[in-house]
Amino acid sequence: MKKILLASTSTLFGQSYLEYLLEELQDFFEGVSTITFIPYARPGGLSHDDYTQMAATAFSKINKKVKGLHCFKDPMDGIAQSEAFFTGGGNTFRLVQQLHQLGLMPALKQKIESGTPYFGTSAGSNIAGPSMKTTNDMPIVYPPSFDTLGVVNFNLNPHYLDADVNSTHKGETRETRIREFHIFNNTPVIGLREGNYIMVQGEQIILKGEGTARIFEAGKTPYESANIPF
Amino acid sequence: MKKILLASTSTLFGQSYLEYLLEELQDFFEGVSTITFIPYARPGGLSHDDYTQMAATAFSKINKKVKGLHCFKDPMDGIAQSEAFFTGGGNTFRLVQQLHQLGLMPALKQKIESGTPYFGTSAGSNIAGPSMKTTNDMPIVYPPSFDTLGVVNFNLNPHYLDADVNSTHKGETRETRIREFHIFNNTPVIGLREGNYIMVQGEQIILKGEGTARIFEAGKTPYESANIPF
Repeated sequence: MKKILLASTSTLFGQSYLEYLLEELQDFFEGVSTITFIPYARPGGLSHDDYTQMAATAFSKINKKVKGLHCFKDPMDGIAQSEAFFTGGGNTFRLVQQLHQLGLMPALKQKIESGTPYFGTSAGSNIAGPSMKTTNDMPIVYPPSFDTLGVVNFNLNPHYLDADVNSTHKGETRETRIREFHIFNNTPVIGLREGNYIMVQGEQIILKGEGTARIFEAGKTPYESANIPF
Repeated sequence: MKKILLASTSTLFGQSYLEYLLEELQDFFEGVSTITFIPYARPGGLSHDDYTQMAATAFSKINKKVKGLHCFKDPMDGIAQSEAFFTGGGNTFRLVQQLHQLGLMPALKQKIESGTPYFGTSAGSNIAGPSMKTTNDMPIVYPPSFDTLGVVNFNLNPHYLDADVNSTHKGETRETRIREFHIFNNTPVIGLREGNYIMVQGEQIILKGEGTARIFEAGKTPYESANIPF
């Protein structure tokens, strides 16, 4: 049974890393001893070691060990041997470039589909959909493809932001960007606000956290929903 | 002599399309009868015809004709025959995908380097640098490469926004994103705020509009400058 937790953000304002999710994560990773951390998104250019340490510190609070995927001699073996995964946020382009260059995307997908728990935040959530084409990140490196895991049948837009009606700035709003995505693509998109997360358990997909998510489907007016309609 | 005008935005809040630039554009396009408009960035999914009409309406106020590049039987001939260019904003990924797929990037570069005036706004300004890796846009389509014209030796970040110190949102600030770019790249980046534009005339490169631009160089603290230091 697929077991996937996709969060908009790792951290809420004024809180420590993963703090608001720890109780949920304790349930989600029940029976797991060591979580494999995928550090490739490198937020702020953080090293793989430092980023893994950050995840380890948070997970130590719920008595879970964390091992960075970069610490396995062969990352492909690392994927094969893992009990559970956590992919942290940062830059989605860098994350996807690394996963493709190391040839890990199909192996990771297969492990998740066979029931290995997968937890992602931000860029780590982005890659659960069929493509990374609804990321907010800057294209600082060129990945060999925008295709991602496709372990859920919708794309995510993490850190979803409603348009500021008082803004005088003329850059595109998030909604405009996602509507432009639907000129060229049909995959539905979930605009996931900070504090919200999606829990997949087998065929059941539920939205957790407060309030609703914004749902974008090609050819339809975007709407708010407390359920995931796909 | 190279003649290039790169604007952060086409439109200021509360104004009509290109309004704040028209006087400058009258000088810039002196002696030019017809401007070739490159509509491929398709803001909001606008059709090539509708987008070209929007540009034509603005330029009619300074007595310039506008012809869409998509209206030439062969866009490569269109590039060759053009007296001057304007590339409008929208989605940089779509713009760059089209220019590469149609094989136009080298021809356009060569024309600009031999002195054909080039005016860009937003995505149209982004492509003047060596790469599109500092765009703000969403990767809604996969271009064959992120390489762009390289008619200036810096990258731009149009619609540059200072971080909102009161924000509780945890998405990356623009500054963080550009600093992440410099983990993997050395090209300097100019954060160009709305209302500002860069004028290139031969070897002379000046910043116009009010105030300063934010300059990012690999390994340096970002700084404000009223000049373009490259």
